[in-house]
Amino acid sequence: MDPDKVKEFLLELQELIVERLEQVDGRPFRRDHWQRPEGGGGLTCVIEEGQLLERGGVNFSHVRGERLPPSATAQRPELAGRPWEAMGVSLVLHPRNPYAPTVHMNVRFFCALPGPGQQGEPVWWFGGGMDLTPYYGFEEDAVHFHSVCKRALDPFGPDYYARFKRWCDEYFFLKHRNEPRGIGGIFYDDLSAGGFEHCFNLTESVGDHFLPAYIPILERRADTPYGERERDFQAYRRGRYVEFNLVWDRGTLFGLQSGGRTESILMSLPPVVKWRYDWHPEPGSAEARLYSDFLKPRDWLA
Amino acid sequence: MDPDKVKEFLLELQELIVERLEQVDGRPFRRDHWQRPEGGGGLTCVIEEGQLLERGGVNFSHVRGERLPPSATAQRPELAGRPWEAMGVSLVLHPRNPYAPTVHMNVRFFCALPGPGQQGEPVWWFGGGMDLTPYYGFEEDAVHFHSVCKRALDPFGPDYYARFKRWCDEYFFLKHRNEPRGIGGIFYDDLSAGGFEHCFNLTESVGDHFLPAYIPILERRADTPYGERERDFQAYRRGRYVEFNLVWDRGTLFGLQSGGRTESILMSLPPVVKWRYDWHPEPGSAEARLYSDFLKPRDWLA
Repeated sequence: MDPDKVKEFLLELQELIVERLEQVDGRPFRRDHWQRPEGGGGLTCVIEEGQLLERGGVNFSHVRGERLPPSATAQRPELAGRPWEAMGVSLVLHPRNPYAPTVHMNVRFFCALPGPGQQGEPVWWFGGGMDLTPYYGFEEDAVHFHSVCKRALDPFGPDYYARFKRWCDEYFFLKHRNEPRGIGGIFYDDLSAGGFEHCFNLTESVGDHFLPAYIPILERRADTPYGERERDFQAYRRGRYVEFNLVWDRGTLFGLQSGGRTESILMSLPPVVKWRYDWHPEPGSAEARLYSDFLKPRDWLA
Repeated sequence: MDPDKVKEFLLELQELIVERLEQVDGRPFRRDHWQRPEGGGGLTCVIEEGQLLERGGVNFSHVRGERLPPSATAQRPELAGRPWEAMGVSLVLHPRNPYAPTVHMNVRFFCALPGPGQQGEPVWWFGGGMDLTPYYGFEEDAVHFHSVCKRALDPFGPDYYARFKRWCDEYFFLKHRNEPRGIGGIFYDDLSAGGFEHCFNLTESVGDHFLPAYIPILERRADTPYGERERDFQAYRRGRYVEFNLVWDRGTLFGLQSGGRTESILMSLPPVVKWRYDWHPEPGSAEARLYSDFLKPRDWLA
């Protein structure tokens, strides 16, 4: 168990992703180093008004706390309240072109230390995943994204992709809308089975497969012509992204509960969002097809 | 204790407010009656793209449930899980003009019935309040709004305004920003002291004082000339409204947890919202004055 190796990987991953995105976008990210008074800090890399990316961030953070908040450990409530340490890379990219999907990727490592007066080893686990949120759906994109997700996990065991794909469908779900956030991907948490090396290698693989999963999709959609109608639908659907992140997302809740850096956490929110009362797409339209053909759990690799 | 009298008052209040707003705006509200499969229903009155109101809603709802969600009873956890009944009028108005403030008002009545096999009387309580969220601050408006709030409460006892004003400052606070939502107003919950008639009359008075508290402010700001800069700041600050309602507001959380009607609950969200990374107003600007002079608890009637 070597947190320093995880940290080294995370920092390299962040730099790799940011540099590649700068190359694709043509504009530089802003890099903000920050410290947390309670311990730890991070590096927030942000782009706003890029050529392809309207807003996006790639955050690294490494933080410590005296008492693990309940939102960090839904599956192990007995660890709540212990001293803890967490590090991760988290990214969300909102392209300007409505035909290019929003994407989220996160890899993280948690460690809960024995409480004062308690005995025992630290309890550690990995979590992570990536998922895609299109405004206009393309089967080709969904298949590509899921194929790369599967490729990232297959070397570690034959059932990881199926399990983590299902977990993603369950996690990125807006209960108050009875609607998935997008076309899914993979999600996992509380991963320690198989030992540190196994889980770390799996998490490295998820991180390493982000660029091959997303860049080809971004590149093939970013020049599609669009108009006011598509931008409007994108702004409306981005509202769902805000609703999910602020109401249901455990990562966001954990960050805000644990005194995280608000501006880094809320980098995930879109640049421009619209809410409209009881709006429904015209039957048969491209917008309606997003709901009927893409916003439902599907086996994209069947 | 007569819930029917409360319901009659609430429906009349809603109609009174909607009709007056239609007169001021010049465009009609849409009226949506709805039923809840689990019991109860409501009337949602909405305006979008009005002449003064860019988006706004005045909701009446009367709903029942088998198990009271924890978010409804922060102060009486022993009531969570009981059969319950709730009715209320809730409104949020987002004017288009950035010089006109957003406003929120709510009056509500709750009743928790004895659980299966339990003895005893129903436990009831009232809650309510109103608060103002300016984008550009005007002392005159804050003083007017708070004066009318005080006028609404003073007949019921000398200390209500001070208590409910403080409660409002505490409740409408964004912990993750260390920032109040706006210039406050009044807020109360779990009100039963003094008996049903007293609490009902006080709640009627709060509802009745909404129009005199807000309409004069809306009317005097709605014609102020503005440009792109003011609209942009308004859209940015509206982000705070979204963050508060989705992350911290117990009413919103209660609605979404209890299977409420999502489109009615999320009527409170602004029509157009922008997020920007680590943005700060220019020192000395009108935007900076909102933070320095208005977004802090102040005794407006001193």
